[in-house]
Amino acid sequence: MAEGSRLKALGNAFSSSLQPPASSPKRSSIRWIPGGVTAALGFGAAGVSAGIKRGRKPDMTLVVSDPPAVCAGTLTTNRVQAAPVLLSRTRLKGEVANAVLLNSGCANCLTGPRGLQDAVALSRMVARELGVPERQILVASTGMIGRRLPVSKMARVIPLLVRRVSRAGHRQAALAILTTDTKAKEAAVVGRLGGRLCRLGGMAKGAGMVAPAMATMLCVLTTDVAIEQALLDELLDHAVEASFNRISVDGDMSTNDTVFILANGRSGVRIRRGTSLADQFAQMLNQVTERLARLIVQDGEGATRTAAIEVGGAKTEAEALACARQVATSSLVRTMLTSGDPNVGRIAAAAGASGARFRPDQLEIRINGQPVVVQGCAVRIGKTMARQLADSRAVSIHIALHAGRAHAAMLTCDLSEAYVRLNARYPS
Amino acid sequence: MAEGSRLKALGNAFSSSLQPPASSPKRSSIRWIPGGVTAALGFGAAGVSAGIKRGRKPDMTLVVSDPPAVCAGTLTTNRVQAAPVLLSRTRLKGEVANAVLLNSGCANCLTGPRGLQDAVALSRMVARELGVPERQILVASTGMIGRRLPVSKMARVIPLLVRRVSRAGHRQAALAILTTDTKAKEAAVVGRLGGRLCRLGGMAKGAGMVAPAMATMLCVLTTDVAIEQALLDELLDHAVEASFNRISVDGDMSTNDTVFILANGRSGVRIRRGTSLADQFAQMLNQVTERLARLIVQDGEGATRTAAIEVGGAKTEAEALACARQVATSSLVRTMLTSGDPNVGRIAAAAGASGARFRPDQLEIRINGQPVVVQGCAVRIGKTMARQLADSRAVSIHIALHAGRAHAAMLTCDLSEAYVRLNARYPS
Repeated sequence: MAEGSRLKALGNAFSSSLQPPASSPKRSSIRWIPGGVTAALGFGAAGVSAGIKRGRKPDMTLVVSDPPAVCAGTLTTNRVQAAPVLLSRTRLKGEVANAVLLNSGCANCLTGPRGLQDAVALSRMVARELGVPERQILVASTGMIGRRLPVSKMARVIPLLVRRVSRAGHRQAALAILTTDTKAKEAAVVGRLGGRLCRLGGMAKGAGMVAPAMATMLCVLTTDVAIEQALLDELLDHAVEASFNRISVDGDMSTNDTVFILANGRSGVRIRRGTSLADQFAQMLNQVTERLARLIVQDGEGATRTAAIEVGGAKTEAEALACARQVATSSLVRTMLTSGDPNVGRIAAAAGASGARFRPDQLEIRINGQPVVVQGCAVRIGKTMARQLADSRAVSIHIALHAGRAHAAMLTCDLSEAYVRLNARYPS
Repeated sequence: MAEGSRLKALGNAFSSSLQPPASSPKRSSIRWIPGGVTAALGFGAAGVSAGIKRGRKPDMTLVVSDPPAVCAGTLTTNRVQAAPVLLSRTRLKGEVANAVLLNSGCANCLTGPRGLQDAVALSRMVARELGVPERQILVASTGMIGRRLPVSKMARVIPLLVRRVSRAGHRQAALAILTTDTKAKEAAVVGRLGGRLCRLGGMAKGAGMVAPAMATMLCVLTTDVAIEQALLDELLDHAVEASFNRISVDGDMSTNDTVFILANGRSGVRIRRGTSLADQFAQMLNQVTERLARLIVQDGEGATRTAAIEVGGAKTEAEALACARQVATSSLVRTMLTSGDPNVGRIAAAAGASGARFRPDQLEIRINGQPVVVQGCAVRIGKTMARQLADSRAVSIHIALHAGRAHAAMLTCDLSEAYVRLNARYPS
């Protein structure tokens, strides 16, 4: 459980998802486009400063759909859940949402019944301003834990926030949800499905080592396809499992982790279960979530390089994933990545501690394609390879267990002194 | 499994074992004595330099028992096991041992069949020099992984090592097993059991964050009681579960973790199952292993303070332990300890991610006795408390789940920049 998924997920059909994106299948035509969370038709966004954070940094975001969108979400499975998570969980039971209100600087967690009232009150103000039902506003927060939201400050800027909503607002929206992230994280694609164009985009903020106060990951996805809620929910769970649940992370699951998707049907493309359109839409969704997950790892606190951990030849996919996760979250492996000096013992020990079944004398490990463990024995590493590793910003570690045919992958970043510095100094 | 026990253990009857040692029961009389691994009658030890490490540091240790001792051990459960672990596992099936040969500087792991041959050859030389059967020599190694032992260098000093063995040699022995530890770790007690004195002592080297190359923990315990192997094995497993398995640790389980105990009967005290003497002997054993575990955490790499994580009111002991372990191994909690600035959200989030069942609105957390979360709500922390926390070398974090009556404890240390520096620079 400790090492389990960050977010609930119904399936785990996707594996090795963090490989470089495969070339698009012949008959689909998916392309990257700008626009982030407002790339899809009918969406607008804005980000403003309410003074929750110091220094007039943007800290409140609104994403609006016109018409109201079918919504789905995956929320933290932590037993301690922030007020906005509790509120949104209820509201996702409704079929449609008009808007998502997000803030950074305060997580509204460990705030009890009054924290829930604060979240309800803010969503009510937004609903009034938009002229839509209160229950159709989703909410998410990230930042300090244990403090109440500064509701009156936030209330004061809601009219401005609503006025500012536009297709051009995606970048301000993406900036206003950041905490210690250094960059806005946006991605969007357009696809030709059944002869018509449709779009899917989104924005995210960091998780795990990325967000020290609470390791919170937030993500809002938007699309202009028409789709029923149950199918949208299912596809989102698969996409999250193959992306955000495959990045690591310091093992700390947040009280606020939230991924929402809104689908408003504006493109006129309808996605039905079991069709080739559904496959193509799933591919668009996976591409965007994988890109956002990768951006999160690359912007990890103090990160100087990323590492893709690929495990092959496992008896089961669960064992492959457990092995990849153990290696990806090992403090010893991650500090090794900082130095760039390959210490294969740390990788082998983490694999051996993962619970994955394999014969130690069959174990093989490659770093950036170079064998470093062959048939359970360490291979002496030349200076060229050590130099090559020290220079690479994206390391690949491949572990072959030779025990079966299942495989899985995780993406991680190194653990640097800067990480500790940031996290030790982040105020409570 | 990833977060499981470092070493196999048959039972888990002990809990909250890392509280300050309770005062001795009325009728027993257990006292701390000097002497470490040679405090018990009939044991001698020595530590010399074989040149495995640079700079003529001591790196080979021998502990000898006269007469041969009944032996037991708990060994790493990592799937990747070093050659000395594989060899000692076989030899523990015999009932008695004459000696334990240990080295630092090279783990003899990922070395394949030739690594096993090296370990056998060295134990044979020691056996010849002592004039005892080869199968009665136990072995343990710690240090770099993936390199073979420098057997000829080591062979050259074996005669000297054997000659040096004496009761006075315990400190040199304890020094020669260290890697990045900064201090020798020794503990010993004497008890009056059934009117006669008997002794139990030992030495250890660090685990987890303590030993970067491989996170290896080594421990040799010696006693002059007479006891059958099965009972000794059982008592050792209990003691290890309540001590070395309750310290954290960066979550990395070593390929070389080893705890041996030798009992030679020289005191004339016989321990039989189900007697009060057995209880008193278990108490001696627990006291020594708990002290050694505490010394390991205090000497953690870069550690500036320790923290006892106590979880009460859990539904089951397994859940209490899972919760304590999750908090103790959280990078976010451990970097918070470095700063000394209490960030209660990190503690609550780790508890919530542990899988332990509780109602979030019942959660209570105290730091150094001061309530910081009450009924699931954060309490504002005064400056006095923040200062007190910043000043304390030993922090206590108490988590009350109010879901049952089970409890458990873990001991951890902070995660500092010095840890990362050490581990990034430790060569492979």
